[in-house]
Amino acid sequence: MTRITVFWLLTVLAAALSLNPACAADGLVWREVEPDRLVFLEMAEGQVVIELSPLFAPRTVKQFSKLASEGFYDGLPFYRVIDGFVAQGGDGSDLGEFSDIPLIDAEFEIDWDEELPWLEVQREDLFADRTGFVNGFAVGRDAKEDRAWLTHCPGVVAMARNEGPNTSRTDFYIVIGQAPRYLDRNMNVFGRVVHGMEVVQRIRRGEPDRNGIIEEDTAKSRIRRLRLGSDVPEEQRPTVLVPDTRDDSFSDLLDDRRDRKQKFFDHRPPKVLDVCQVPLSGRVIR
Amino acid sequence: MTRITVFWLLTVLAAALSLNPACAADGLVWREVEPDRLVFLEMAEGQVVIELSPLFAPRTVKQFSKLASEGFYDGLPFYRVIDGFVAQGGDGSDLGEFSDIPLIDAEFEIDWDEELPWLEVQREDLFADRTGFVNGFAVGRDAKEDRAWLTHCPGVVAMARNEGPNTSRTDFYIVIGQAPRYLDRNMNVFGRVVHGMEVVQRIRRGEPDRNGIIEEDTAKSRIRRLRLGSDVPEEQRPTVLVPDTRDDSFSDLLDDRRDRKQKFFDHRPPKVLDVCQVPLSGRVIR
Repeated sequence: MTRITVFWLLTVLAAALSLNPACAADGLVWREVEPDRLVFLEMAEGQVVIELSPLFAPRTVKQFSKLASEGFYDGLPFYRVIDGFVAQGGDGSDLGEFSDIPLIDAEFEIDWDEELPWLEVQREDLFADRTGFVNGFAVGRDAKEDRAWLTHCPGVVAMARNEGPNTSRTDFYIVIGQAPRYLDRNMNVFGRVVHGMEVVQRIRRGEPDRNGIIEEDTAKSRIRRLRLGSDVPEEQRPTVLVPDTRDDSFSDLLDDRRDRKQKFFDHRPPKVLDVCQVPLSGRVIR
Repeated sequence: MTRITVFWLLTVLAAALSLNPACAADGLVWREVEPDRLVFLEMAEGQVVIELSPLFAPRTVKQFSKLASEGFYDGLPFYRVIDGFVAQGGDGSDLGEFSDIPLIDAEFEIDWDEELPWLEVQREDLFADRTGFVNGFAVGRDAKEDRAWLTHCPGVVAMARNEGPNTSRTDFYIVIGQAPRYLDRNMNVFGRVVHGMEVVQRIRRGEPDRNGIIEEDTAKSRIRRLRLGSDVPEEQRPTVLVPDTRDDSFSDLLDDRRDRKQKFFDHRPPKVLDVCQVPLSGRVIR
């Protein structure tokens, strides 16, 4: 809210001085996303970049990547869009249309593994024993049941499904509002938007009264092209950097956000962190 | 995520049968917002409707309403916009520009009053002892200190300020991302968007690296006109309805969301509610 002019000038200066994109001015260390985990979603509204998580959703990532490589999503609309909730796109097979594409077995959560590059964010979060980050993804964890899952933060990408757990197939949604955490452990979450959320926010909405379904074809935002990074020729492929959540620079950022010492705070906020309220935007370098 | 066709058809049918806008098809009871608590914010992107809360921020509402009536905001830009955080607009006096408009003394919270039409949502929320609704507004409460405040949910409207608590004046922000609850009890929150959040989401963003500040004039979304409802001639003024959070129909809706019994939920979500994740969109009837 306040003007942080000095900080801002220093940031701009540091950015101008820095020639290595992996050593950005904000003190964070950045990592490059591998091409086969990158998705470029192009729309009239602009470009959205998604990072996939084969660690948490191997089957979903495999099917989604195959469909992307075949051009399956090109030209398809976002046909169910509820402001503050989700933008759902695809061929509508989730609405009962015939499809010969196989269903994906549920992979809503994984077994906890001590080897995971876990950075804890919060204990006794409202929706989970523990929250944290694994490779840039916001994760919930049940310490008693030894389970972990990708949480429904804004920008999360997941497969839509019907009533049964093993009924997701092709259609996906992006979370565009306050985290609907009640969906955690119930959906095949397989990615997150790392760049272009402001583009996602421009996707045309449906009426909440109609469950967000947009009937008229011309009223729908469309996917022009959805391409896997590894399908883009190297010389055309932008480099996508995201904050490295395994690095101390990132845990320092969390510490600063958890304990806000600035004079600005007349009332000192409680020393807690909402795992979905940590900025994680990536950088796209052409 | 799932198709709720039967529910949807029933909804459409019920809407067609209902002639009384205050008795909507979703079973909620709606109340009309008084004209002097309504703000119509018109932009090229569309119309946004804001409800003011003189109960929680009487001085801020008074100054904002006076400025609105004088046409102060007409033509001014949203000059600081960070995706996932806030869209801030006004004349930039918050950036140190000269202004002869008086500062507003802090009104970050109020004394708890047993007479408030309180509907409890959650105990031991991550950021507050208790959360609930008062007249449609999401509220945090400290039961030990006997204080209550408007929480920073998406759509909340508050005055920007500089470092001191009594330094807000004219510029305001709208929350456009995951609730930044660490700002609670630190800002003059005075309203909430009750219609048109998808319009707010189209406001043009600045660069996070530059603290969201947009330098170029042509790159900024602008306020065409910002009018108080009571300044709009009655015959031109739309009726704005919002869910009545004092009614049992609304607490029933909360109960359904807190305890999701639908077969869809393979994993039963924890019986908790995030006060910022309750849909509260209003209806505009022309």
